[in-house]
Amino acid sequence: MAATAGAAPEARASGEQGGEPGMSEQEGRGAPEASGELSQARVSFQTAPDRYRHWRIAFDGAVATLTMDVAEDNGLRDGYELKLNSYDLGVDIELYDAVQRLRFEHPEVRAVVITSAKDKVFSAGANIRMLAASPHAWKVNFCKFTNETRNGIEDATACSGQAYLAALNGTASGGGYELALACEHIMLIDDRSAAVSLPELPLLGVLPGTGGLTRVTDKRHVRRDLADHFSTRPEGVGGAKAVAWRLVDEAVPRSAWSQTVAARAAEFAARSARPAGAAGIELTPLGKTRTDDAVSYGHVSALLDHAGGVAEITVRGPGQEPPASAEWIQDHGAGFWPLAVARELDDLVLDLRTNEPGLGTWIFRTAGDPGRVLAYDRLLLGSRDDWLVNEIILYLKRTLRRLDVTSRSLIALIEPGSCFAGSLLELALAADRSYMLAGVFEDADPDVASWRGAPRRRAEDAVPAVIAVAEMNLGALPMSNDLTRLQTRFFGDPDALAAAEKLAGQLLEAGDAERLGLVTFAPDDIDWAEEVRLAVEERSGFSPDALTGMEANYRFAGPETLETKIFGRLSAWQNWIFTRPSAAGPDGALRRYGTGQRAVFDRKRV
Amino acid sequence: MAATAGAAPEARASGEQGGEPGMSEQEGRGAPEASGELSQARVSFQTAPDRYRHWRIAFDGAVATLTMDVAEDNGLRDGYELKLNSYDLGVDIELYDAVQRLRFEHPEVRAVVITSAKDKVFSAGANIRMLAASPHAWKVNFCKFTNETRNGIEDATACSGQAYLAALNGTASGGGYELALACEHIMLIDDRSAAVSLPELPLLGVLPGTGGLTRVTDKRHVRRDLADHFSTRPEGVGGAKAVAWRLVDEAVPRSAWSQTVAARAAEFAARSARPAGAAGIELTPLGKTRTDDAVSYGHVSALLDHAGGVAEITVRGPGQEPPASAEWIQDHGAGFWPLAVARELDDLVLDLRTNEPGLGTWIFRTAGDPGRVLAYDRLLLGSRDDWLVNEIILYLKRTLRRLDVTSRSLIALIEPGSCFAGSLLELALAADRSYMLAGVFEDADPDVASWRGAPRRRAEDAVPAVIAVAEMNLGALPMSNDLTRLQTRFFGDPDALAAAEKLAGQLLEAGDAERLGLVTFAPDDIDWAEEVRLAVEERSGFSPDALTGMEANYRFAGPETLETKIFGRLSAWQNWIFTRPSAAGPDGALRRYGTGQRAVFDRKRV
Repeated sequence: MAATAGAAPEARASGEQGGEPGMSEQEGRGAPEASGELSQARVSFQTAPDRYRHWRIAFDGAVATLTMDVAEDNGLRDGYELKLNSYDLGVDIELYDAVQRLRFEHPEVRAVVITSAKDKVFSAGANIRMLAASPHAWKVNFCKFTNETRNGIEDATACSGQAYLAALNGTASGGGYELALACEHIMLIDDRSAAVSLPELPLLGVLPGTGGLTRVTDKRHVRRDLADHFSTRPEGVGGAKAVAWRLVDEAVPRSAWSQTVAARAAEFAARSARPAGAAGIELTPLGKTRTDDAVSYGHVSALLDHAGGVAEITVRGPGQEPPASAEWIQDHGAGFWPLAVARELDDLVLDLRTNEPGLGTWIFRTAGDPGRVLAYDRLLLGSRDDWLVNEIILYLKRTLRRLDVTSRSLIALIEPGSCFAGSLLELALAADRSYMLAGVFEDADPDVASWRGAPRRRAEDAVPAVIAVAEMNLGALPMSNDLTRLQTRFFGDPDALAAAEKLAGQLLEAGDAERLGLVTFAPDDIDWAEEVRLAVEERSGFSPDALTGMEANYRFAGPETLETKIFGRLSAWQNWIFTRPSAAGPDGALRRYGTGQRAVFDRKRV
Repeated sequence: MAATAGAAPEARASGEQGGEPGMSEQEGRGAPEASGELSQARVSFQTAPDRYRHWRIAFDGAVATLTMDVAEDNGLRDGYELKLNSYDLGVDIELYDAVQRLRFEHPEVRAVVITSAKDKVFSAGANIRMLAASPHAWKVNFCKFTNETRNGIEDATACSGQAYLAALNGTASGGGYELALACEHIMLIDDRSAAVSLPELPLLGVLPGTGGLTRVTDKRHVRRDLADHFSTRPEGVGGAKAVAWRLVDEAVPRSAWSQTVAARAAEFAARSARPAGAAGIELTPLGKTRTDDAVSYGHVSALLDHAGGVAEITVRGPGQEPPASAEWIQDHGAGFWPLAVARELDDLVLDLRTNEPGLGTWIFRTAGDPGRVLAYDRLLLGSRDDWLVNEIILYLKRTLRRLDVTSRSLIALIEPGSCFAGSLLELALAADRSYMLAGVFEDADPDVASWRGAPRRRAEDAVPAVIAVAEMNLGALPMSNDLTRLQTRFFGDPDALAAAEKLAGQLLEAGDAERLGLVTFAPDDIDWAEEVRLAVEERSGFSPDALTGMEANYRFAGPETLETKIFGRLSAWQNWIFTRPSAAGPDGALRRYGTGQRAVFDRKRV
């Protein structure tokens, strides 16, 4: 447990949330894969600025400053010190929280400066001892989450009018520089010692893990041979050369530092279309109940079947008709159904990914009135000019993207009483497969449980399930390949895409849904239980690694973008390297770093 | 050694080439990485139809038929039997040879039918026992080569007017179906038992390794959820469903099989623009000398420094002015300099990749008259309407692409007497870095060796090196991302690209070349030796795995295509899975296949 605060990470987080009921403090399931050095207490992703240990936020009109000041002794796990603004998952959870709150709670903020409180150092990147001591799955998950946060920074810059500027008041190494790469503008202090660097390859035998290699060439447009040279120099590059090579946008003398940073932030702020005079809404604590076997929020819940390796997730549709206007949303804030669902789903995905690696299959159900979901969607799309509505749609987009890159098999079950329509249809489209019941469950005995424990057999179960494509599926929630999930599904089949899009707004029963290719299979009551059971049980019998690889390929048909390259090409190579003896073996570079011993490499190239 | 033929694979190949001098038969260097079961005799990629053991070619006018008839007992290594038309590297080397010869030796062939001589089976794919017993590097290299051959089949279909048709007269599983996927048209016999399948995931815990997952969605446009289902069914899908799901183009009853295959081949042949009445040229045996420490051909040679882990490769420019017309090329055939260089380089890349994994850095030099290289390029581009000239350019394109995906650090040294111009400039542009000497070597003492043993200090060394961008660099030799190497180099920097392209045809000395960004560094005589030595030695000190990952990212800036997705996203995931215990561990699925024991998986998802 944490050495200083006297509390386990989960206890700390749980307590900080005001004592939510049911937050367990016991050890998570599953022994570490490779190393037992780091304890496995359940990680919480909930925090708030008054509980930050590693970051400070300051506001000055349209400019916010996020200052990184990592507390060395406050690592999420024992066994390492977070020196030189190096970070672990706990540091990044706070950064993620800050980025989200800036979007929702601070409409007045139009530029965000990220800088460091340390002297002569911006950030040394991900903590190496943490990485060296972590099991493979932890490293992979850590990189995935930090990547998503950096993509979110770019999303805020591109879509929310909150431009991020990196003010590197000292050296930015590895993940420190990669954080800067996620910013729109990079300023480096020009003092003959400050530099940017990607020392992972020469020092640690791994790759920069948060998009560095992709962003250097594809975003910053650094020439590939210069990028190669740069990535082999542990000392990095600073000053005029860093500018000439496009590694940073400007090198600023110390004497002009503060005023130049302020001037540049003001310039970026001036370009923003964020509204004047708007009030933010507070991202209030999620009402979350968490036990070993269940997670529950206001609209989202999950049953965790550890024996079967399955999480059964249910998303409930809106309990009432939508309000008439966007003003209502402003007044009701975080309680507004679409925002609440996005937040709850986001937290659930992070919780299960990190704390429940043994649950390899996630089953998605919905419950509610599809017409009502569509009504909320119409309100959102009709008010998208409103900054807050825009933020809510963007949040849903990011949450669905998080699902797309989640290494779990996703199966949607579409049953009577469900509401897979519009925004919630995206859950079925994100799934690896979907099963839609044709007709109703003939056996209406309310005492007979469904295939698993999900509640069913209510009055509405006498009506066949419907799904609906709607405007929300036609462009507002693009995947990271910049296609809609429908476009990805029907990649190369424009007729099928047009047929599905043409029926937007109509409620489709199973036969039509299957014929249009919107669901995978549509068994009737006689076959349903057996077919679904086989699909789920079969999934548990396959190699988890092979499933991850297959899904990472099939989910991203078609074109690639910077984001898909980061999650596909770059992350896959990094995962490979993370399992290889040259990096992660007892004599590998990652494990030997700082010991004074040279790493031992198998010299054969693969 | 091979069980039946009484000769080692290398001896077999060497002898078959008519006793080329210097072909060593001793064991290759380097112990197997994970398993000692397969011996490591050096592999030769040279063969010819009269020596095929596993394939037959038959010709009928414009249609050639390639019949797979794998000889069970003729595996390249001991320890497995090639049952059910399963294949190993030896089988695929013959296929590669056949595809190449069909292009060059048979201009009359406009459609190629691939089928099987076995009853009820097309091909069971890559041999599982071979894979299970092979070290990691072998599996990765094997998949890379087989992928390149399948890409070559698609290239012949798209660019050479030789359309490939898969005539699946029985079940095509795994790599067998992936071979079909590389064809333009897939016919499956409809006899209630024949099916196509990708059983890798459910049976072996790995991915289809030759592009299957990418081609199913991105080429065949199978819907991703159906693809998911298909890839979990070991028994596969046949008949009408296979057609409906787009897995094959047609299912043909046995009674109509032969005539339908013939009719379809004739249809595709009729669409081809291959010339009438042209005569092919023979791909005569390469004049190759191979010892432990050197490889030598007519125009290409390599010194192998095993202690330093470096191969120094020299490509010599044309020894005489180009002929005046394409007719001359037809008459002189395989001796024509551009074709000879492409063939020699191709063979060298395959030889070093497979047989010399410990040589992690490849240094490229050229020697000759840059003006003469440009003259040959002009001849080629001016005669591209000629089928043979077109084939030569395409061959060079494919050879350079092979270099792009080679997991070795590539460094180009541009020195006096070199000819990095036009087509040969591509070698420098493909390199991870290039060093160009500014000025000449002041120390002209012919007895002083250069940095390493490459010959220098001749009369032409008194003249500074030049390079030249030319028309050949502007579109004829695209990378697999469909950009030229110049476009990839200057990705996102259109001004730099325009500046470089504008100087096409001019001979550029080091200062200009560096200023234009065409070379990485341009040290003068004083710094040259030290700077180059440091770069090369430093490379040998880095983790080979991390270098592979870095280069796989930096070399492919910008957009992705089916081909780059296969080598980046798909192969990287496969490599990861190949190292994981669930597949390759002693209790993993790949090792336990066929033993009657179930594989043991770590159930945690990563």
